[in-house]
Amino acid sequence: MALIVQKYGGTSVGSVEKIKTVAERVVESCERGNRLVVVLSAMAGQTDALINLSREITESPDPRELDVLMATGEQVSVSLFAIAVKSMGYDCRSLLGFQADIHTDQIYGKARIKEIDTHRIVKELDEDRIVAVAGFQGIDKTGNITTLGRGGSDTTAVALAASLKASVCEIFTDVDGIFSADPSVCTHARKLDRISYEEMLELASLGAKVLDIRSVEFAKKFNVPIHVRSSFTRNEGTMVVVEDREMERVLVSGVVFDKDEARITIVKVPDRPGIAFEIFDPVFKAGIVVDMIIQNPSAQGLTDLTFTVTKTHFQETLRLVRGVAKEIGAEKVLGDPDIAKVSIVGLGMRNHAGVASKMFEALSKESINISMISTSEIKISCVVEEKYTELAVRALHEAFGLGNEGEKN
Amino acid sequence: MALIVQKYGGTSVGSVEKIKTVAERVVESCERGNRLVVVLSAMAGQTDALINLSREITESPDPRELDVLMATGEQVSVSLFAIAVKSMGYDCRSLLGFQADIHTDQIYGKARIKEIDTHRIVKELDEDRIVAVAGFQGIDKTGNITTLGRGGSDTTAVALAASLKASVCEIFTDVDGIFSADPSVCTHARKLDRISYEEMLELASLGAKVLDIRSVEFAKKFNVPIHVRSSFTRNEGTMVVVEDREMERVLVSGVVFDKDEARITIVKVPDRPGIAFEIFDPVFKAGIVVDMIIQNPSAQGLTDLTFTVTKTHFQETLRLVRGVAKEIGAEKVLGDPDIAKVSIVGLGMRNHAGVASKMFEALSKESINISMISTSEIKISCVVEEKYTELAVRALHEAFGLGNEGEKN
Repeated sequence: MALIVQKYGGTSVGSVEKIKTVAERVVESCERGNRLVVVLSAMAGQTDALINLSREITESPDPRELDVLMATGEQVSVSLFAIAVKSMGYDCRSLLGFQADIHTDQIYGKARIKEIDTHRIVKELDEDRIVAVAGFQGIDKTGNITTLGRGGSDTTAVALAASLKASVCEIFTDVDGIFSADPSVCTHARKLDRISYEEMLELASLGAKVLDIRSVEFAKKFNVPIHVRSSFTRNEGTMVVVEDREMERVLVSGVVFDKDEARITIVKVPDRPGIAFEIFDPVFKAGIVVDMIIQNPSAQGLTDLTFTVTKTHFQETLRLVRGVAKEIGAEKVLGDPDIAKVSIVGLGMRNHAGVASKMFEALSKESINISMISTSEIKISCVVEEKYTELAVRALHEAFGLGNEGEKN
Repeated sequence: MALIVQKYGGTSVGSVEKIKTVAERVVESCERGNRLVVVLSAMAGQTDALINLSREITESPDPRELDVLMATGEQVSVSLFAIAVKSMGYDCRSLLGFQADIHTDQIYGKARIKEIDTHRIVKELDEDRIVAVAGFQGIDKTGNITTLGRGGSDTTAVALAASLKASVCEIFTDVDGIFSADPSVCTHARKLDRISYEEMLELASLGAKVLDIRSVEFAKKFNVPIHVRSSFTRNEGTMVVVEDREMERVLVSGVVFDKDEARITIVKVPDRPGIAFEIFDPVFKAGIVVDMIIQNPSAQGLTDLTFTVTKTHFQETLRLVRGVAKEIGAEKVLGDPDIAKVSIVGLGMRNHAGVASKMFEALSKESINISMISTSEIKISCVVEEKYTELAVRALHEAFGLGNEGEKN
């Protein structure tokens, strides 16, 4: 009997009807002889509704209590799911974070799983029950409720799969799997059958929303095969697994974009040691994550420094940086929120030259100007004007032949 | 510094605005130098909404999972309350059943509190925090979530007050206290300043909805003074306390009624040992609570047996009893759902004759026929036609002079 961990996201359990459908699907899998641990997210919209409720009281609700509040979302899902499964004549138990012994650190709102004591889950499985675990939540060492942040249920599922040594972690979502590009932008986008953890990590960090990046890190670390698939169809989805030789032959696996970026340039910064620290220290201290950072070579002791942040942090960052710019005697600060980052990801890049130039050529053919470039071993990202995003994605998808099985790359 | 346990019911926390008002009131009490443990119910309507959600799946949801579902109601209340208190600059922590170590038996949906380990609560109080405890919920010995049934938050509050040796348990509700009769029926009804546990027990079991009967039993057992008061005014409410000599001088403290009764009579039952058991066994086995039971003296080996059940159980009981009646050879079964029980309660009855006859006289004056009578040491209940309920209450209230402080009884 295979042990499978399945995770159903918010849209998959968005209504009582959908929860019943999920229950039927789980029971089917159970009927095929599998032992099942099912991780559920809150019903779609529920987490936001709870946050809004707290915002009616204060703009900055206490983080500990916000976690207590938000944890109710998954509690509702798992109990309704267990009620549905039991009403179908199968035994099932819901377990919340504290009952499933999902131990985290104490960082409310974005806790990290430190350890899972699977004792209780295994006991329930041994008594032939389907086990429904509330995603997204855990407890710290003094028994306070913590939540893992957006996408946390993916992490719960993968961490459980790792701890239980499950044969696979199936992530059910509202799309058919991982695509070579966003199908709503690129009609020729192709569903990938398999993809490596490394590529998936890049895709997730570059804007692909399907899998939470921490869950992929977890899966990579503990070698948990992830099967990303749709809860609305029976189609096979995408397996996220350890890379193998065949994968390396593929130059580019996917094109991905992120419109949630804004660019800030500090012009004519005096180029001296410690200047980057002076500039970014107040930004980091404000809890703002800086994505790309580019510094041009210095000319006459002056340099331009450009970086990107998310659009929500744009105004605040601009304000902070303008303050610093004055102090350090930079000429001026420019900002542009109308940009997007378009990236290509592929294991094959490691061993093949010319991928970057092919990318630049494809963008140039469409007269798309590149304002920033950033590369890693298996990805290349270009910042372009936001309005060209979709055109850039389609051009790159076409240039690397991603849409056509026959003449791939 | 006095330690006070306060409990706010569903209507008192029925909206975010109301939760903020409760937070202000708690902070005020804190400012007066008290240490506070605050027990909250689910926001009004929330528990029913959750039950309805489960009913969309099945008519008979699994009891364990229904408790997991329902426990979210109080979880939302306490976290929002704690967020409100913290936003006002006071320290506060919410504790759920498992965190407050409220240990119950394993009867889902109507669990009983067995023990409270106050270690964690005391620790939070010692760190100068206001402690918000989710009412209505606990955990069994294997860590499953249980709920205490309707009115369970009252029990949580009183049990906490007993365990913590609080100086008083304040039950905040939507009325000003315990009245000599329902003010909506009897405009002359008077708020009682003090009432004994025994009288409160009778009133609660006879239809008064203000306090859950189990909480009064708990309070009596551990001698916890209860202060029933309104969350919408600053008025003093009613103290529920140990009886004293002055209380005994009052013949009747209150008149109470219960319309949720239905009467069943089995005519000409063969009067032989074990017959009552034969009749009631299937009723009890169906989980139906029988209230009054009256058996007339036997004539020629045949007797009439009359009893009452709640209106919701009327049809089912009738069906069960008709089956038994046939088996035992009774003549017929009569049923009447249009009845009500009107009762008077008072410690003084114990030592004074004539209270019953005064009651019968008052009803007779209004031409109200009494179809059943049941008495205990400190109460007399009469079953009358339902349509006479309000008239009967007013007549008794008047007859025992309850509305007028000056000429009481």
